[in-house]
Amino acid sequence: MISLEQAQERIKKEIDNIRLPSEPGGLYDPVKYTLGLGGKRIRPALVLLSANLFSENIDDAIGPAIGIEIFHNFTLLHDDLMDNSEIRRGQKTVHLKWNPNTAILSGDVMSILANEFICKTASSNLKEILQAFNRTAIEVCEGQMYDMDFESRTDVTISEYLEMIRLKTSVLIAASLEIGALSANATKNQGKDLYEYGLNLGMAFQLQDDLLDSYGDTKSFGKKVGNDILTNKKTYLMISALNESSPADKKRLIEILEEKNFIPEKKIKDVKLIFDKYSVKELIQNKIDAYFQIALKKLNSISIEENRKSTLQNFSQQLMDRNF
Amino acid sequence: MISLEQAQERIKKEIDNIRLPSEPGGLYDPVKYTLGLGGKRIRPALVLLSANLFSENIDDAIGPAIGIEIFHNFTLLHDDLMDNSEIRRGQKTVHLKWNPNTAILSGDVMSILANEFICKTASSNLKEILQAFNRTAIEVCEGQMYDMDFESRTDVTISEYLEMIRLKTSVLIAASLEIGALSANATKNQGKDLYEYGLNLGMAFQLQDDLLDSYGDTKSFGKKVGNDILTNKKTYLMISALNESSPADKKRLIEILEEKNFIPEKKIKDVKLIFDKYSVKELIQNKIDAYFQIALKKLNSISIEENRKSTLQNFSQQLMDRNF
Repeated sequence: MISLEQAQERIKKEIDNIRLPSEPGGLYDPVKYTLGLGGKRIRPALVLLSANLFSENIDDAIGPAIGIEIFHNFTLLHDDLMDNSEIRRGQKTVHLKWNPNTAILSGDVMSILANEFICKTASSNLKEILQAFNRTAIEVCEGQMYDMDFESRTDVTISEYLEMIRLKTSVLIAASLEIGALSANATKNQGKDLYEYGLNLGMAFQLQDDLLDSYGDTKSFGKKVGNDILTNKKTYLMISALNESSPADKKRLIEILEEKNFIPEKKIKDVKLIFDKYSVKELIQNKIDAYFQIALKKLNSISIEENRKSTLQNFSQQLMDRNF
Repeated sequence: MISLEQAQERIKKEIDNIRLPSEPGGLYDPVKYTLGLGGKRIRPALVLLSANLFSENIDDAIGPAIGIEIFHNFTLLHDDLMDNSEIRRGQKTVHLKWNPNTAILSGDVMSILANEFICKTASSNLKEILQAFNRTAIEVCEGQMYDMDFESRTDVTISEYLEMIRLKTSVLIAASLEIGALSANATKNQGKDLYEYGLNLGMAFQLQDDLLDSYGDTKSFGKKVGNDILTNKKTYLMISALNESSPADKKRLIEILEEKNFIPEKKIKDVKLIFDKYSVKELIQNKIDAYFQIALKKLNSISIEENRKSTLQNFSQQLMDRNF
């Protein structure tokens, strides 16, 4: 059995060893730059850990793991361009370091490279792996489209929001686990169970991200606290506050959202006063706990030796504690 | 044996029958719009004709054929955005009808849909088909990057230009034929021979496109003649003229290219005077003929019954005569 750290180490080594052509540099330099930015590489690590549930030999999971990481980085690259984000992992985004056309085309080639790596497996489940991957990749695009749609809407419901984060974030975590299992020749049902585990874990993870964005400690969260509030993001917290508040407080909240000239610190404070009045922090915490419990239950229900599950169990807990 | 028209008819029917989700509309409406614009659908027709060389049952070639057509349309969608083109097949381009972000994301999902369709085959050559497809898709991106790079360069050589059109245009025509053969369980070598046939046919086709852009008849060519000259494209004609001309004529040609205020008709006339002085029309015609002869020779060398080859032989001729 490998540990999370060993899985991440293996992924790092494999990504560092990818040899891309030098020409055309305008196409491949941004790909190398993007893959070199690192990150926690949770998804490919999950592919390996999931494969390792069923087999000591995880070689057939390496290609799909790298493919999923390349795909994830491709979506970040294009999302950053569409959202006009300036910084990714502490470095300039590709469309600013180069230009928008370079970001489009380098992203396109990463999407294809992802497919090429997914195919690098001798598993007899190649077709099932590809089906899971393609279905998931399409859903991630759907999630990004909903996310962009929601920016200009003020009537997003909780269920619409949950569906959006399911598509944009959870399905890829879920598919990482399913594909890892399939690459180690697990049964389709075992793959589905791991998918469900990952889906619920992914929901808990994304909601916790929302919670930490407003209530986290800047130091341990690693991002500036309050960014979602400043950019009027319709997160679970904001939608709940709009739903739960009195007509007067709702009116006040919308006024704060619509105010063009604001002092950042004051806006964050004013919004959080309303959040606190309606206990939306507790609402989201309950939701996170519920998803997390379903995730653990799903993992426990999978019929493999208990001791093989400990790495994923620990990982789940670490993910929620954000200390890995 | 099916005819080219029957192949195109079958492709049209299959594309019309694709059922995409209705939501999110911002993602799928542009995909439906793009696929609905039609076009000659040469590439998927070639997949079917190639499969038909080896098997009367071409069902296992349908998925890959549609996948290749969706991929081709995806590249046009993103190319139009990158080139800021306004019209595609007589209609507004996606980034203008919607917006750039919609064009990026709809293109992304088309690229994944292409992969999904490629996988819809029961052929035992699925892995080989995917390898051929992914390798080709990457090359098409490389071709587009070189094409964009060349815009700002004045020192593009003939061999660089030929390599660019090989990547941007020829390899996908070649892979269509290879993948059709593989989907009908042809041998790898038969696939490679058909690839070489398509590669040379694709080179002849693209060079003829360059020739017609400057010397074609507007009516039968279907596009405005002289567009490449007006946009200073470094085509085979232009590069040859720069190579072959006297120092004085070369200086004159560069002056014409650099002139910001020009009368379109006069610019076309002046450039073509230099083209004619150095017989670049004949140079390109010789090059087209050479590629076309190699293509036919490759097709003839493939060890299958002669009568099965007639559809592709006729198609090759029709492609050069531009009357299909």
